[in-house]
Amino acid sequence: MIYRRATPIEFNHCDPAGIVFYPRYFEMTNSVVENFFREVAGQSYAAMMEAGQGVPTARLETEFHAPSRLGEVLEWWLRVTRLGGSSVGFTVEAWCGASHRVTAKLVLVWVEAGGRPKPWPEAIRARIAAFQEADDA
Amino acid sequence: MIYRRATPIEFNHCDPAGIVFYPRYFEMTNSVVENFFREVAGQSYAAMMEAGQGVPTARLETEFHAPSRLGEVLEWWLRVTRLGGSSVGFTVEAWCGASHRVTAKLVLVWVEAGGRPKPWPEAIRARIAAFQEADDA
Amino acid sequence: MIYRRATPIEFNHCDPAGIVFYPRYFEMTNSVVENFFREVAGQSYAAMMEAGQGVPTARLETEFHAPSRLGEVLEWWLRVTRLGGSSVGFTVEAWCGASHRVTAKLVLVWVEAGGRPKPWPEAIRARIAAFQEADDA
Amino acid sequence: MIYRRATPIEFNHCDPAGIVFYPRYFEMTNSVVENFFREVAGQSYAAMMEAGQGVPTARLETEFHAPSRLGEVLEWWLRVTRLGGSSVGFTVEAWCGASHRVTAKLVLVWVEAGGRPKPWPEAIRARIAAFQEADDA
Repeated sequence: MIYRRATPIEFNHCDPAGIVFYPRYFEMTNSVVENFFREVAGQSYAAMMEAGQGVPTARLETEFHAPSRLGEVLEWWLRVTRLGGSSVGFTVEAWCGASHRVTAKLVLVWVEAGGRPKPWPEAIRARIAAFQEADDA
Repeated sequence: MIYRRATPIEFNHCDPAGIVFYPRYFEMTNSVVENFFREVAGQSYAAMMEAGQGVPTARLETEFHAPSRLGEVLEWWLRVTRLGGSSVGFTVEAWCGASHRVTAKLVLVWVEAGGRPKPWPEAIRARIAAFQEADDA
Repeated sequence: MIYRRATPIEFNHCDPAGIVFYPRYFEMTNSVVENFFREVAGQSYAAMMEAGQGVPTARLETEFHAPSRLGEVLEWWLRVTRLGGSSVGFTVEAWCGASHRVTAKLVLVWVEAGGRPKPWPEAIRARIAAFQEADDA
Repeated sequence: MIYRRATPIEFNHCDPAGIVFYPRYFEMTNSVVENFFREVAGQSYAAMMEAGQGVPTARLETEFHAPSRLGEVLEWWLRVTRLGGSSVGFTVEAWCGASHRVTAKLVLVWVEAGGRPKPWPEAIRARIAAFQEADDA
């Protein structure tokens, strides 16, 4: 299944060349993943922080296919590509209409007190697995 | 009249104390103002950039009344307080429910080629004036 | 006395108009103040975080006198203007050679566990007071 | 040869878990690369912008080996791994003492008016090649 978010490109995202500055794309990928955890996995980052939990990013591969410009709206797509015992792989893409802008492959790790990797809590893992397996209607 | 925007507080906005880092509030005030220009004044920042125009901020007074936390949603209100020949004053407030978080008073200046202050284009000035004078329904 | 820091204007600070985006100036004022606390007041932000302390900004007045451009180096000056029981006032200015770019007046509050304002610890207050009273050599 | 820069981890870089927020690492990699172009390749980003040139990032692979904390100083190392006709590959690493924090492999492309890839200007290419081939003294 695909999780979707739209991000309007605002002044704040753009560099002196008038295109999105690449670190700002990662603020966007982080936001997409953050909203996925809240809406799909059932655990918000606020709840994680209070419980001493987190999902730091361990690995990231990104291709920037074409630049994005002020005033455009990016459509972000997130797919779960691999659900491990204490990690998850996402592929996140950004599109503007038919123009493919960014592909990012991320691996995140579930950590608990002290930042140590731990097995996923069962409820969170079940929700991510159900999302991964569901067909798009 | 009041222009409104909502901003969910995401991970990206928060500091090690778990509250919004104050420079991030100004990314938000900038976004509120940017959307006001596009939706109300009828000139997007993208159109301004192409035409060599802009609305740099000349002056800013801010009070931070109470901290904002990860997971909250801020309601931003913008009012036009003064419309000059080549400048505009805004008061922008952020609320979370009944909790008042931020008051910012900004003065922006209309500039054209080379960053020089110029009188407002008539169409933009008329739309800001109409907004300022309209009652909230 | 004056506390000084230099900030090269890098790509990351600049907007599509090729000048410093104003929220980035506040990342700079925050950095100047953060280094002042570490070097002059004798308490780093890292030490504060561990101890549940902090110095949130309560109030901020800023004038942007002239734009700053990619490749310039800003000289930041910080003066203590008022040392209260649990607060401190700073005037922070940015210059590029003889060109005055920004004046920011900030009020920060000393807080402890739970974010509650508290009287300054004596050692910190004494160091800030000594700095405020010292003549520039 | 290795190009080096140090980055103190400041408040601005850190997230509510008290560690560097990963998009901020990319502000740092961008800054390292930007300074490399100015100091080693002999063309600053300011000069590029004026000439309608740029070096957008086309591809990025990153591993986050261990978290970085407020108050630490990161040592960044940049090596040229491949110099193509209109592109360059860098490996950029961040260390804190003997602790390896980040490895990023970047591919950047030389572009001119309109953002089209072009062969490197000879002077810039020669300086990057000389750096790549030089031994560390």
